Amino acid sequence: MNRIFGLRKSEFHFMHDISQYQDFFIEYLNKQDIHKEPKNLYEPIEYILGLGGKRMRPVLTLMAAEVFNTDYKVALPAAMAVEVFHNFSLVHDDIMDDAPLRRGQVTVHEKWNLNTGILSGDTMLILAYQYFEQYEPAVFRDLAKLFSKTALEVCEGQQWDVDFETRKDVTIPEYLKMIEYKTAVLVAAAMKMGAIVAKSSEKDGDLIYDFGLNLGLAFQLQDDYLDAFGDPETFGKQVGGDIIENKKTYLYLKALEFSSAEKASELEQLFSLQLEDNSEKIETAKAIFNESGASKATQEAIEMYTFKAFDTLEKMDINAEKKDILRTFGENLMGRKV
Amino acid sequence: MNRIFGLRKSEFHFMHDISQYQDFFIEYLNKQDIHKEPKNLYEPIEYILGLGGKRMRPVLTLMAAEVFNTDYKVALPAAMAVEVFHNFSLVHDDIMDDAPLRRGQVTVHEKWNLNTGILSGDTMLILAYQYFEQYEPAVFRDLAKLFSKTALEVCEGQQWDVDFETRKDVTIPEYLKMIEYKTAVLVAAAMKMGAIVAKSSEKDGDLIYDFGLNLGLAFQLQDDYLDAFGDPETFGKQVGGDIIENKKTYLYLKALEFSSAEKASELEQLFSLQLEDNSEKIETAKAIFNESGASKATQEAIEMYTFKAFDTLEKMDINAEKKDILRTFGENLMGRKV
Repeated sequence: MNRIFGLRKSEFHFMHDISQYQDFFIEYLNKQDIHKEPKNLYEPIEYILGLGGKRMRPVLTLMAAEVFNTDYKVALPAAMAVEVFHNFSLVHDDIMDDAPLRRGQVTVHEKWNLNTGILSGDTMLILAYQYFEQYEPAVFRDLAKLFSKTALEVCEGQQWDVDFETRKDVTIPEYLKMIEYKTAVLVAAAMKMGAIVAKSSEKDGDLIYDFGLNLGLAFQLQDDYLDAFGDPETFGKQVGGDIIENKKTYLYLKALEFSSAEKASELEQLFSLQLEDNSEKIETAKAIFNESGASKATQEAIEMYTFKAFDTLEKMDINAEKKDILRTFGENLMGRKV
Repeated sequence: MNRIFGLRKSEFHFMHDISQYQDFFIEYLNKQDIHKEPKNLYEPIEYILGLGGKRMRPVLTLMAAEVFNTDYKVALPAAMAVEVFHNFSLVHDDIMDDAPLRRGQVTVHEKWNLNTGILSGDTMLILAYQYFEQYEPAVFRDLAKLFSKTALEVCEGQQWDVDFETRKDVTIPEYLKMIEYKTAVLVAAAMKMGAIVAKSSEKDGDLIYDFGLNLGLAFQLQDDYLDAFGDPETFGKQVGGDIIENKKTYLYLKALEFSSAEKASELEQLFSLQLEDNSEKIETAKAIFNESGASKATQEAIEMYTFKAFDTLEKMDINAEKKDILRTFGENLMGRKV
């Protein structure tokens, strides 16, 4: 938060902290005129965008623009596109998962109906593209290309996730590809969009993409870990939720890999149960995760991806202060005990 | 189909007939590599795109490019975007309408499931945008902007259509806006995309958009008319389908407008029935449509929009031969007795 004199002009750039970026983004979001006609189409969009959340993805776009010496304001439309797309995916995923709640509130298809959920979602996907129109043709094209590629990957990741539910032979590389597509590519693209609007070098754009990708993978693996081993007091979701729902997470797949045929078969058996009271199932699964070495392997994978992200930072053509800011962001993200 | 010598270079351009454009488009479509992984996502896309249809919209894109003196080949990716978008809207609309059949074949959500219908549809919407990436930045931006605007209008039109089902006070202007958005804007945009890739003047681009818009309106009103009064032997759909489903078409709204309070109330009563045998209901409705003057008013509206389309042609900066080709296309489209 201080200006540094005596450096190259491009390094003068002033940066803000996460909570400031959140505030800037929410101010911009609140100024958008989403309440249009027909209201049955736009009210659900206003509703889901207003439900809150940490706004992590758009914040990363703003932060990345400033890392590459461009005012965050320039990145606001791109950040908005990322957030609108993320919310599109939530609305359609909630239909597919038959989820009643999102961020503690009723989901769109429950509050309205299935058709509204589908059509408002479609509209959000188109609205996201429209935010890129605020940029000149070459930037527009770069943003829209990255966005389309990313959006397709998110759909493919969602399809793999659906497919994996009914498959018994999911491999670790397949699982990693699925979480990469379903979660990490959007984090990566959000950051690269900041680089694109800042007209960074192609090399720096690719590096910040890799930083986001590896951080996104680490984040998702940590989510898998915390779902089983997080503190019930601070973890937003129900601890053990993945075990209850028989989800084939990294913990589960590693436990199968490391276990004897007998133990593996016990775990598979456990993950076919649908119970009323799950406390014993959760304890048994966690014991197998620990004894098999799966917990340790998951923690090592989290560290490995976090390390890869930080290693990428070193190769970027930005000053030490900016590297520190990105590293601190990553450390805060990964240091969460929730 | 003959080259004209002695005219400006820009007027040399060779044109093809509709069935040739259809063949060119289908050849291009068949060359696309849609069969990717995950197959549960891409097989439904291949399926719906392979169901056929007249390919009217992409044909219009190819034709418009040649009207503006550019080889149809240049317009193939834009034509493909239009067709992929149209099929996206069919897949999601079929879910919303709970339709079992599309072009005489099982709909995607029936052949697979609801989630596949949603996710494959989303993927098609993104794929449509990707086809524009084959153009230079300025053309890409113009195409994507027009596409986003059009796609939003199609979603809004669909929402109005859904809203109208449960409203008793739909006005004629509201109905016309609904069919403009739901149907006509995509016909208009398909033609303007041909003009964009051909780098026509802005004026000509706007004129061909208006030509398509008015022709699209005339076409949809004719569809309303033929649904009641078409020849059961040649009309692809069940004659009287709109009456059976209590659809508030132009015929119905005009009949309400022209009828005495008593007659209007009889019609409203008729359009609240859900019957096993509909033959008497269909005959009664058709009699009211004829006696009230609604049939005549609908035919007049069709003629008016067709005339407006042809009038727009006259203002275009293209040679007489090309105007003839567009007029002939319009006449064939509107002359259908099906």
